[in-house]
Amino acid sequence: MVSPHSTIKLMMTNLVLTKETLCFGGKVQYYQHDSEACGLPMNFAVFVPPQAETRPVPTLYYLSGLTCTEENFTTKAGAQKYAADYGLMLVAPDTSPRNTGIADEDKDWDLGSGAGFYVDATQQPWANHYQMYSYITEELPKLIEANFSVTAKRGIFGHSMGGHGALICALRQPDFYQSVSAFAPIVAPSQCPWGEKAFTAYLGTDKTLWENYDATALLQKNGPLKYPILVDQGSADGFLEKQLLTEKLAIACEKVGQPLTLRYQDGYDHSYFFIATFMLDHVRHHAQFLIG
Amino acid sequence: MVSPHSTIKLMMTNLVLTKETLCFGGKVQYYQHDSEACGLPMNFAVFVPPQAETRPVPTLYYLSGLTCTEENFTTKAGAQKYAADYGLMLVAPDTSPRNTGIADEDKDWDLGSGAGFYVDATQQPWANHYQMYSYITEELPKLIEANFSVTAKRGIFGHSMGGHGALICALRQPDFYQSVSAFAPIVAPSQCPWGEKAFTAYLGTDKTLWENYDATALLQKNGPLKYPILVDQGSADGFLEKQLLTEKLAIACEKVGQPLTLRYQDGYDHSYFFIATFMLDHVRHHAQFLIG
Repeated sequence: MVSPHSTIKLMMTNLVLTKETLCFGGKVQYYQHDSEACGLPMNFAVFVPPQAETRPVPTLYYLSGLTCTEENFTTKAGAQKYAADYGLMLVAPDTSPRNTGIADEDKDWDLGSGAGFYVDATQQPWANHYQMYSYITEELPKLIEANFSVTAKRGIFGHSMGGHGALICALRQPDFYQSVSAFAPIVAPSQCPWGEKAFTAYLGTDKTLWENYDATALLQKNGPLKYPILVDQGSADGFLEKQLLTEKLAIACEKVGQPLTLRYQDGYDHSYFFIATFMLDHVRHHAQFLIG
Repeated sequence: MVSPHSTIKLMMTNLVLTKETLCFGGKVQYYQHDSEACGLPMNFAVFVPPQAETRPVPTLYYLSGLTCTEENFTTKAGAQKYAADYGLMLVAPDTSPRNTGIADEDKDWDLGSGAGFYVDATQQPWANHYQMYSYITEELPKLIEANFSVTAKRGIFGHSMGGHGALICALRQPDFYQSVSAFAPIVAPSQCPWGEKAFTAYLGTDKTLWENYDATALLQKNGPLKYPILVDQGSADGFLEKQLLTEKLAIACEKVGQPLTLRYQDGYDHSYFFIATFMLDHVRHHAQFLIG
């Protein structure tokens, strides 16, 4: 944590500010840095709320879905207004390493670039660079906490593949985070086509290893969190039935006594229009655990 | 105006709904239709607020800037939340005809496609299709008012080239619109490089004809509006000095007694992050004239 009167100190010389814009009295900033975990430059965006000018603020991490970069959330979710109201820093990382040199990394929209699935890959050709779990839960928080005016309070949320990411981060490191929520998360990647394809490629065919990155499996393995889970899910989401499998989360939470607020939002789809609509509720949910 | 219990009636058979998404309890919809004014299919997006299910609502037109389509405002401005709060329909047209067959229509980002400048072109090769003024102020409102549950109250606003568009629409047809505002408008296109290039191409070299599409000239020609103008302008906007020429609007308003609220927003640039930050103020500004 740096001096509360400095919103940013570039202590790590490889952290490069590539773009900065004022927004709701705070700053939207885009960064690139050489990632140790991924062995390549990684990109992320932040929103530094106005409160960070005078005191450290909690951090809320947002993990995006398939095909996204740090840009989608930053331009479309409308979260900055609420983060400025509550005094939360937002951190939105990219969804995978890029330009790894791996053949076919850009071939499929649901594997490789834009589809890191927030796991540490053990299989080649992915293992050298696709270390997104370590990146998200270790390297990135260290970088943020060394360079910005933030407290050690952390929330995490995300959408679709990023909702899966947020849930597994909180379920694996329940004390590192203090709050979690998700929009239309993939709740049981071991049991849906997107997850099966990605986990086979990144983790291999031994399905017992997949359980470390599957929210419903982790709930049964690690038991309930000390804090509740908030999930919004559109009822008209075309991915609900085959990929997201939301009811499996409800069943797993029920089984282990995990408090869950699962809201099926009538008629809403999988888009950022759905996310923007319920963004305030999610920021407010995190704020109650991160502030005060 | 259609039955207040139907939010949309496709009375004109050429109006095609291409995409629809729920958002803040209302509907984001994208349409294509065969435009008579432009002689080609034109695209626009709307937000139908939840109130339109039970009663007609006023319409707020948003004109976008250079290079934009109907998509930028719809995904980035965050206006739907406020339109849902106040009960306003939003209409965001594309910024030019597309695929006209005109050679070089896509060559420059500040002329042709994405740069219609909201004028009725008199010069070839543009005159056959680039009839954006007639499209925005006649054809589109007729289409909206025949097909959606709206009142005859209309506000208009926009950004940059679209701020120029909003100002000239209100100044030329002050009784057709009941409110106007702009984000970082081009206020004197006859006197800036963007405007000089576009007006020469679309209107020819007789500068007296340009005055019909120049907000500062129209103010002096037509006198003040019965309603005030709200303008937000970022002080760090890179286009301010050479293209937007904001002070000329202040001088023209002062000269003719036009009420103007001109706010220079310290440190803000020309982006949608600036627009989103002050969107609520603009929607509220329009609401006070359009509602009740």
